[in-house]
Order: sequence, then C-alpha cells, then structure tokens
Amino acid sequence: MNFQELLNNKVETVEKIVMSYLPKEEGMQSRIMEAMNYSVLAGGKRLRPLLLSESFQMYGGTGEVYKPFMAALEMIHTYSLVHDDLPAMDNDLYRRGKKTTHAQFGEAIAILAGDGLLNYAYETAAKAFSMANTQDVAKAFAVLASKAGIYGMVGGQTVDVIAEKEHKSLSLDEIMYVHANKTAALLQAPLMIGAILAGADDAQVSLMEKVGYNVGIAFQIQDDILDVTSTFDELGKPIGSDAEQGKETYVTLKGLDEAAKDVERLSKEAMDILLGVPGDHAFLEALISHLITRRK
Amino acid sequence: MNFQELLNNKVETVEKIVMSYLPKEEGMQSRIMEAMNYSVLAGGKRLRPLLLSESFQMYGGTGEVYKPFMAALEMIHTYSLVHDDLPAMDNDLYRRGKKTTHAQFGEAIAILAGDGLLNYAYETAAKAFSMANTQDVAKAFAVLASKAGIYGMVGGQTVDVIAEKEHKSLSLDEIMYVHANKTAALLQAPLMIGAILAGADDAQVSLMEKVGYNVGIAFQIQDDILDVTSTFDELGKPIGSDAEQGKETYVTLKGLDEAAKDVERLSKEAMDILLGVPGDHAFLEALISHLITRRK
Repeated sequence: MNFQELLNNKVETVEKIVMSYLPKEEGMQSRIMEAMNYSVLAGGKRLRPLLLSESFQMYGGTGEVYKPFMAALEMIHTYSLVHDDLPAMDNDLYRRGKKTTHAQFGEAIAILAGDGLLNYAYETAAKAFSMANTQDVAKAFAVLASKAGIYGMVGGQTVDVIAEKEHKSLSLDEIMYVHANKTAALLQAPLMIGAILAGADDAQVSLMEKVGYNVGIAFQIQDDILDVTSTFDELGKPIGSDAEQGKETYVTLKGLDEAAKDVERLSKEAMDILLGVPGDHAFLEALISHLITRRK
Repeated sequence: MNFQELLNNKVETVEKIVMSYLPKEEGMQSRIMEAMNYSVLAGGKRLRPLLLSESFQMYGGTGEVYKPFMAALEMIHTYSLVHDDLPAMDNDLYRRGKKTTHAQFGEAIAILAGDGLLNYAYETAAKAFSMANTQDVAKAFAVLASKAGIYGMVGGQTVDVIAEKEHKSLSLDEIMYVHANKTAALLQAPLMIGAILAGADDAQVSLMEKVGYNVGIAFQIQDDILDVTSTFDELGKPIGSDAEQGKETYVTLKGLDEAAKDVERLSKEAMDILLGVPGDHAFLEALISHLITRRK
C-alpha cells in the first residue's frame, strides 16, 4: 500500500470514530444538531484527529480513551470554520464546494451551531474521564482548552481578524504569532494529547509540542511560498493574491530563499524529534512530510 | 443585616472571586481579553456563581475548588448574552445601560469574545483539577458542559431563536422546553456543581437539579405574569409587550390564575427540598423567594 492509500484508509477510520460521537438529530432542538453535523460532515482532511491517534499509538497507548478527544478536536476545528465563515468575519458562502453553515441554515443558527460544537467538544472529551486515569485525562483537557482558547487559536484569530478589518499590515513577529496560534496550536494539541493519554512523560509531551509548532509554521510558510510560485491551475486560487492585496507575509518580509530554507529547517527539526521517539512513527513522518512539501 | 444588605455583601464577594479569574489584558491578542472582560464587568446579578457558592457551603464544602467553577459559570452566562445580542440574533445595542459587546468592539470581535469566554470557562474550570478530588471535579465538569450545551442552554436558545426568526408561535410544551433549557439549565448547574464539589451524594445532586428547575421555571412564569399585570413604571419596559407581539406565553396559554398557582407550587416544592437539607440554607431560601416573588 502506498502512502496515499494508507492515508485514505486511516482517514476513513478516523471519520468513523468522529461520526460515532456526533449528536443524534432529535428533540425539539434538532435543528442545532443538524447544523452541527452538516458542518462536521462537510469534509476536510481530518488532520487533527489523525495526528492524535497517530501520536497515541506511537507512544504505545491502549484502550479507547483517545477517541472522545479525536472527536473533540474535530468539533473545535469545525466550530472555528463555522464562525470564521460568518458575514461579520470572512463572509464566505462556500467551503470545499459546499454551502457554509450560515449560507445553509441562516446566520443565527450558524452562530449557535458554532457555540454548540465548541461546548459539545468539551462535553464529548469529558466522556474520557470514565475511560482511563483521571489525572491524565485532566491534563489532556487542560492542553485542549489552552491550545483552543485565547492563548491559542482564538488569540491567533483575534490578531488576524483585527489586521483584516483594520487593513493593517502585520510585522514578522505578528505573522509568526498568527501562524503559531491560529494554525500550529490546534496541531500541537492532538500530538500532545495523544502522548499524554498514552502515558508519555512531560519531556515527551514537550517534544510533541515542538513538532506541532514546527509543522504548523512550516505549513503556513509553504502556503505563502505557493502563493507566489504556483500557477493558477496548481493552486486553484488566484496566484500572488496576498501580494496583490498588499498583504505582508513571511515571504514578502523574508524573501523566497530564506522562507524555503526555514521550511526545510523546521521540517528537519520535526523529523529529528520523531526519529528519537521509540515507537513506530513511519506514517507520522510521511504525513508531516506530505503536509509540508505539498505542491498545492 | 437585612436580606438586601446581605445580598449586596455576598455579590461583592462573588464579584471579587469572578474577577480574580478574568484574563490579564496583555499580549498581541489583548483586544480579545479587553472585550471579554468588558462583557463580564458590564454588570449583572452574579446569580449563578452566587448559587454555586451557597450550595457548596450548604453541603459543608471546604477549600477553594468551587471558585474556578463560579468564574466559569459567569463566563458561560456572559458569552451567551454577548452572542444573543449580535445583529443576527436579538440585535441589541444596549444591555444594562451599557453598549453591548458588538456595539463597543465590532461584530467580529464580539463573536470571538463570546467564543473566547466559552472556551476560557472550561480552561478556568480545569484549574480545579489540581485543587480537589479529581473524580468530583470530573463530575462537575460533565454537569457544566451538559447544562450549557445542546442538551441545555444552547438547545433552549435554538428553539427560542427559531420561533423568533420564523415568527412561529410556541406550544406549551415548547415554551416549557425553552424555559427549562434557556433559563433553568444554567441555574441547575451551579446548584448541582456546588453539591458535587462539596461531596454530596447523587440523591442530593438530583434534589438540587430539581430546585434549579423549579426556580428557573417559576422565575420565567413570573416574568410572563408581570408582562401582563405590571404598570410601565414598575416593569421599566412596555406592558403587555408579549401579547401585543402575538407571542404565546405560559400566561396566554394557561391563564393568569393557573400561572400564579404554578409559581406558588413550584416555589413551595423548591423550599420543601431545601428544608430537608441539613446545612444552613436560610440565605438560599431568601434568595430564591426574592427571585420568584419579585415585583419587577
């Protein structure tokens, strides 16, 4: 089986697990479940739950305690997209070829569906308390909340949204802050939580935090690189759209060569860390390399 | 000291505790903390954290484990108001005489501030894991998430919002569902969590769930009663505004006499339960009676 076939198989397994935790569409409030499930089932790479399950297995985790957290991560990722797409935010009517949640259900229900998903993520993760060592679950919980919140993803979104709304150019420090929090934080969380729930020690959890950081930053720099180097056909969106909008990116500030070198370095650091972990990490390596070196 | 003085003192103590858990307004993302803190500090009765602390004390709880949950409850209550006030929801520019969050900070930041508060509520509650028996904290966590989410408050908001947006009259069952979930659920949570964290058994926690239900429903029916019986001066808003809008309420469906009797019965049931709890519940009784029998 090649990497792509293996990836497809694994994503299928991940989707089954995530779907098994979605709420039933019943009761007087069933519309909210419909909107939540519509949003989650609209597709996506399922990258975050996949990273969680790979990290858990790499550290030799056993049992099912990681599953509620896989679903929770995907719900949090999805709520952030639902709210990002709202008219007051990015005002997107389509995502992955499907109507966004507010385009399909109206704005009020989309706001509530996002709230519902965020809250249900914690409600779902709380199911893990009866499944394993409560101290580990509590630790995983704290990591999840911290990486998803104002010191993580919501913080990154805030700086990004303010720049957008106020037509402000970001400094390199601010760009790094947005990449680290809007993107990397929710990649760090699954890698760290997988390790925690498998019983890995704090030093290993810190290594996973570093891997997630590097992958997230490298992914975003690669995104900026593709924005200036790809042809329209490869990228599927207007080329150079960042520069045309006068938007500063990692590439406009540091130059293409430097940016490419940084991707290389971040990627190598992440791989070196993985190679030091005793468990089986062949797929995780391939996945990370696939993510960072993608051509579109 | 009379009840009102005692209440004022207690609310002052509650506010100090809640404020001690608010995030510092610092970092590149400080705008989000400013918006969150603005929303929480805009005022309010602090009823939910007060109920939590009273229940915890009534059941003989010791230590500080209840404090993060007090702050979490107030953050969840506040996020629900911030999102409710948004243009796509109730579109309110003022609340308690102050600009609502979106009127003050713009819609995008208000959406993020609501998300930030909801997430930070769980981040804050998670601090309790290092402060007491982890099993009890996990149980409190599950109650919080359940009462705040799609099987609680968000569920109630959904049915209410759909009725509003689609100009649909609610049946008595639906009205009861909205009252039970939009209002009562977030009164049940603090009473139950206080009991859980004090080490009360499941039977006592169920009794607190019942008390919270009765208080929430009685409070809402009383609201409907006041809407038709008060003068403008007493109520501070147009009298009979529900009926004028053709909105069905508990009172329009069951009549004033029946509604008043139900408030009486629900209130008496709640009091009878409290009288059966061994601890000191004098203030809690007075508070509940104050809430239900208010004249405006």
